[in-house]
Amino acid sequence: MADKIAIASDHAAVDLKAALAAWLREAGHEVVDLGPATADSVDYPDYGYKLAEHVASGQADKGVALCGSGIGISIAVNRNPGCRCALVSDGLSARLSREHNDANVIAMGARLIGIDTAKDCLSAFLTTPFGGGRHQRRVDKLSNPENVKEPA
Amino acid sequence: MADKIAIASDHAAVDLKAALAAWLREAGHEVVDLGPATADSVDYPDYGYKLAEHVASGQADKGVALCGSGIGISIAVNRNPGCRCALVSDGLSARLSREHNDANVIAMGARLIGIDTAKDCLSAFLTTPFGGGRHQRRVDKLSNPENVKEPA
Repeated sequence: MADKIAIASDHAAVDLKAALAAWLREAGHEVVDLGPATADSVDYPDYGYKLAEHVASGQADKGVALCGSGIGISIAVNRNPGCRCALVSDGLSARLSREHNDANVIAMGARLIGIDTAKDCLSAFLTTPFGGGRHQRRVDKLSNPENVKEPA
Repeated sequence: MADKIAIASDHAAVDLKAALAAWLREAGHEVVDLGPATADSVDYPDYGYKLAEHVASGQADKGVALCGSGIGISIAVNRNPGCRCALVSDGLSARLSREHNDANVIAMGARLIGIDTAKDCLSAFLTTPFGGGRHQRRVDKLSNPENVKEPA
């Protein structure tokens, strides 16, 4: 199943971004590289917000967000209630992010994860279906933070 | 240095929450347990939003967010622009989340992380100072998503 996938990073992750983009294209996916194009220093929130808007607006089916640790860009993407971004470093987490959270963006840390583990995570992210059921109610609450009442 | 720490979870992580709360209190921290009190099924966004509000409003200095994988509750906490929540599974990530991202909430997955690794992450999270400098500008952008212009 080919998806349209948007990918973005900061300067620390441009090499991983290029490697994963090439690998995804080889697998038949349409990949939109939202930058940056060089390793010149940039701010991860700029690219996280750009990616989030791309996915939330439906211009891409899914997103891949990369920075040095994955932490900064995952925070940025999750500022957008249309995105559910899972920061992962192993395939099981990537699978659970789809089954339980219907994640539409995956984040990874280029300075912390090896290329084959990153591919394993991405593969699980792209092939695992959402579980639905009780998980749907929780995912709906992530889309509408303002409507959720505080528990007692 | 004693902090006031808020902690919250879903049903999958009540045992880890109790263990970490006891360990933090023993270390001299003031801990506010925002629930849930039992292992009855709840929705992680409810507790994530509650914790986020507690930290963003200054009622606690830092927060600890736990669910089965850590993914769902970390997404929920990051809906609040006053929180920078890092989902971690190792001490290095926890340290980097403070140095680079000035994280004020740490998330972990109770079904994925062992108790001693969780304590190691929490220890790094509580003792590592923010690096400031170029990181400050990026952190500021995480607090004000609406003011960030899209990169070219």
